[in-house]
Amino acid sequence: MPSPDPVLSKFGIHVRNLRETQDLTQEQLAERAKLDITYISGIERGLRNPSLLSLLRLAKALGVSLKQLTEGVEL
Amino acid sequence: MPSPDPVLSKFGIHVRNLRETQDLTQEQLAERAKLDITYISGIERGLRNPSLLSLLRLAKALGVSLKQLTEGVEL
Repeated sequence: MPSPDPVLSKFGIHVRNLRETQDLTQEQLAERAKLDITYISGIERGLRNPSLLSLLRLAKALGVSLKQLTEGVEL
Repeated sequence: MPSPDPVLSKFGIHVRNLRETQDLTQEQLAERAKLDITYISGIERGLRNPSLLSLLRLAKALGVSLKQLTEGVEL
């Protein structure tokens, strides 16, 4: 298993925090965002590099802007 | 050839505007962002759905924030 990318790990932790702040389970977030729950789990563990459209769906499902979703995420 | 996604098309036009505002060729942007020139061309034509890491590299290469790079892009 490759070690997760530090940028993606940071992003994953941020997504988890946003989700938990809203008392959503991964399953509920997956349903809202119309993404697979294993994909949500992979994102939160820093193992996925989501596309722009997936980012937009995640932001919408969490009720935040793309800016808020990617807060603090930089190279 | 599938018709481009409207969100990705809008994003592509925005990237092209940012690039041209800085008098960069696609080749120069590709080199800075360490992405393939055909990928840059595909993004600008709305045919690519770039990942988070590619978005970060594009933003850095254009000297803008992720927020500026994705300005006006929403579902």
